[in-house]
Amino acid sequence: MTTIGSETEFINTLIGRFEPSPRRRNAPHEADAELIELFGGGLTGNTHLLAVTTDTISEEIETGLYRDPYQIGWMAVTASLSDLAAVGAAPLGLLISETLPEGYGSEAIEQLQEGISDGCRSARTHVLGGDTNTGQLLSITGTAIGLVYHRHRLTRRGCAPGDILYASGRLGRGNGFALAVFGNGRSGHFPGGYLPRARVREGLLLPGAATSCMDSSDGLFSTLAQLAALNRVGFRIAEAWEDALDRTSLEIVRSAGLPAWLLLAGCHGEFEQIFTVGESRRDSFTEKAGSIGWNPVEIGTVTEGPGVLLPVCGGTRNIDVAYLRNLSFRRSGGIGKYLDAILQYEHEMAKGE
Amino acid sequence: MTTIGSETEFINTLIGRFEPSPRRRNAPHEADAELIELFGGGLTGNTHLLAVTTDTISEEIETGLYRDPYQIGWMAVTASLSDLAAVGAAPLGLLISETLPEGYGSEAIEQLQEGISDGCRSARTHVLGGDTNTGQLLSITGTAIGLVYHRHRLTRRGCAPGDILYASGRLGRGNGFALAVFGNGRSGHFPGGYLPRARVREGLLLPGAATSCMDSSDGLFSTLAQLAALNRVGFRIAEAWEDALDRTSLEIVRSAGLPAWLLLAGCHGEFEQIFTVGESRRDSFTEKAGSIGWNPVEIGTVTEGPGVLLPVCGGTRNIDVAYLRNLSFRRSGGIGKYLDAILQYEHEMAKGE
Repeated sequence: MTTIGSETEFINTLIGRFEPSPRRRNAPHEADAELIELFGGGLTGNTHLLAVTTDTISEEIETGLYRDPYQIGWMAVTASLSDLAAVGAAPLGLLISETLPEGYGSEAIEQLQEGISDGCRSARTHVLGGDTNTGQLLSITGTAIGLVYHRHRLTRRGCAPGDILYASGRLGRGNGFALAVFGNGRSGHFPGGYLPRARVREGLLLPGAATSCMDSSDGLFSTLAQLAALNRVGFRIAEAWEDALDRTSLEIVRSAGLPAWLLLAGCHGEFEQIFTVGESRRDSFTEKAGSIGWNPVEIGTVTEGPGVLLPVCGGTRNIDVAYLRNLSFRRSGGIGKYLDAILQYEHEMAKGE
Repeated sequence: MTTIGSETEFINTLIGRFEPSPRRRNAPHEADAELIELFGGGLTGNTHLLAVTTDTISEEIETGLYRDPYQIGWMAVTASLSDLAAVGAAPLGLLISETLPEGYGSEAIEQLQEGISDGCRSARTHVLGGDTNTGQLLSITGTAIGLVYHRHRLTRRGCAPGDILYASGRLGRGNGFALAVFGNGRSGHFPGGYLPRARVREGLLLPGAATSCMDSSDGLFSTLAQLAALNRVGFRIAEAWEDALDRTSLEIVRSAGLPAWLLLAGCHGEFEQIFTVGESRRDSFTEKAGSIGWNPVEIGTVTEGPGVLLPVCGGTRNIDVAYLRNLSFRRSGGIGKYLDAILQYEHEMAKGE
């Protein structure tokens, strides 16, 4: 899901080689899923666009973040469906390609399929087909396919200063889980488990209401950095941002003496939707959300920018998202050094630097 | 592309866990690509079906069959597009998910993208989007998406005794290439290279004309075995079958003292389309094919069955396809033992057993 160096830069190099499809109705990086014209004839010929996205779960397996076969199956489905949700698509289903190690036991294989199956069920969709291979390492690629109305195209682009910034649910659970697995002296136990539900049902309410949307699969700060760059805006996080954090994860960082904002800075996100709604639509949107029992969390506002402003350490800090994003476990030389760098950053903020 | 044990059996176990999608208009294994209803309303609500298929190239890389990055990129595209061609779909494009080893050089990465790009161009289609990951092993998943007319649904099922059996082009090049790479004392040099072109353009002529179709990605005998089982028929291969073989590959088997039918029995196919046409449509189909400069090869007829009959060793033999298919390099304990088993089978056929 993540990749060599700066993902965006690297993907740009790769994509640069490919002739753009005349059917694609979004620019590269402009949307979590690609929006494709089904038939000729532009707007008049198409009531719907196809939304398609593909995601491989292999790094999380290789690094040991995901070990439970059920969770691996679940995540392969969720990662792709979450991208569909970010464009407000109704899923048609998923294709699953599995590479299974030769010695992979039948019980593990069963759990893996169970995770895939339950992940689909939680979003009321289905596996359409797939491919299986044997190989040295376990790896799963999920490809999700859905439909959106052409008239209500929702992408990462479109927000403006003054819009309200929402998260579809509490934040930080992905990074809380990663800390439980990799953190010093922790057993890997994470109360409630890490099985995020793709926000497909909620996503269906966004087209026409939200001005931009992106899922938080790489963590909140990364998501905001992308939205800021694409829309040439900034973000001001609300004073009460800690109230928007997942309780279990907050307890983990607190008991480890780590700052709460680490839950927003880490690159293992929570698969919530981060989206913006114009001030004038706030009430009608909130009402619509309430009608399906959904309470999206207001986490800030869109500003003229630049930068992501966080109320922290007794002031408001402009967060160096690029620096924090580059502090991945691998590049920092392990979890210990990563957390040291986080504490150092907190220390500098406390000094007002 | 291939897998643990018997692929079909294994996939059945996996698929058994998944609730079938109400949108899917084909049974499992009934088509090379899944045929999906886009909108509600059944036949009246849909002029088209979506055709989708996913394919991971990892085994061929791990075994050393594919080493050239350009070829790997090309094959990732071709394997998926060939499945679209088998249902006669017009491609909308492809999603490509790449897992690249951390030390993979920039030149290799460039060649890989070039192969993907050229594979698309050869079928006049495009990369729609994708995902990149780092990992220990190189692996690429291609997902191809296309459209077919609902009224002319083409699958593996539908042929009847008396139909004519065609191949979209000469056969055996996939196995010829594998012999060049793995064969005793060979350098791996394969004149002309192995870059099969997905038969997308030809596939578009098949719906309405062909009664069944399947691509030969696993070799001719495997393909015929599947078509025979699904349709409860058999096949009689034409007397002149050696004329339908790829010349380069035929020379390789001959100079190695191996039987020519090995090119049909090996499991590394040539990505041609194997399809059937009713006797009464032969002329109109041949004419239509000629109009795009295509000469499909008649390779036999559909029989009441059971079995695949091959004129060989001075008689007509009912080929034990299941036995030959199970003689994979791995399970036979290497290429030497595999070829010994092939020669032994030839010996028994010569004795009339």
